Amino acid sequence: MVEPFDPVQSANETARETRRQLLREARFGTLATINENGYPFASLVTFALDRVETPFLLVSRLSGHTKHLLMDPRCSLLVGDPGKGDPLAHARITIQCTASTIDPSNEDIIILRTLFLARHPKSALYIDFPDFLFIKLTMMEASLNGGFGKAFRLNGDDLR
Amino acid sequence: MVEPFDPVQSANETARETRRQLLREARFGTLATINENGYPFASLVTFALDRVETPFLLVSRLSGHTKHLLMDPRCSLLVGDPGKGDPLAHARITIQCTASTIDPSNEDIIILRTLFLARHPKSALYIDFPDFLFIKLTMMEASLNGGFGKAFRLNGDDLR
Repeated sequence: MVEPFDPVQSANETARETRRQLLREARFGTLATINENGYPFASLVTFALDRVETPFLLVSRLSGHTKHLLMDPRCSLLVGDPGKGDPLAHARITIQCTASTIDPSNEDIIILRTLFLARHPKSALYIDFPDFLFIKLTMMEASLNGGFGKAFRLNGDDLR
Repeated sequence: MVEPFDPVQSANETARETRRQLLREARFGTLATINENGYPFASLVTFALDRVETPFLLVSRLSGHTKHLLMDPRCSLLVGDPGKGDPLAHARITIQCTASTIDPSNEDIIILRTLFLARHPKSALYIDFPDFLFIKLTMMEASLNGGFGKAFRLNGDDLR
């Protein structure tokens, strides 16, 4: 039996380092959630990284994606700025994640707040609004696309 | 009984016109699909508009999102460049769509090819590769976010 052609390679150190850089430098990401009709839903989000470089979101309870994640924690985060020229020539990564809300009484909240404000100073305008909360995205696996023909699969170990 | 607060308004003419402009001017979009594990999957795509301004993608059969759409045509397309400053201050729209592949023998294919190349000249490098195909995204409904506190719902009539 002939194996079907798989254009996706296992991660190497370059792929793992590209993943770290994309997460460290991103100004925004796109979140995919499942909406109330079972449809996939793409929306813009801002995130920061906690002390072990796990991404976390600041979102409003009034937003569609927050309602979706409270119903179904499965999501993915696409990171990578399409920049200039052909958008498909730039590196980007899709990280499959499980979302969990962070309790406002959690002792880490002050650190998360500081880390978020450091990356997104403009969020000072709304970070303390009562409808806003932090949601942690535990990373399960990822697909890195380093440009045409450079596709890598990252597993849980590659993401730690 | 008190209705729960809904921050989302019905579309007005400004919302409908913003939707058209976002689709006409976009260099790229983010597609949300359902992957083989049932997870939502976000990925970067390029698209153009056909003669009735319905978006269509140029994708490779080797790409994850193409495989997902062939299994489950439900998807959404996020459009709107986050630009400079706070990414959340810029207008963007999530359009819930149903995907359908366009048969290469369809007589419209030459027009679609011309329209796609006009918007994405760099795609000339791969548009004729045998693994590439066009996928039409029929728009069902949409959520327009015009910046903080400016959220609109667009139904099928608003999208025609």
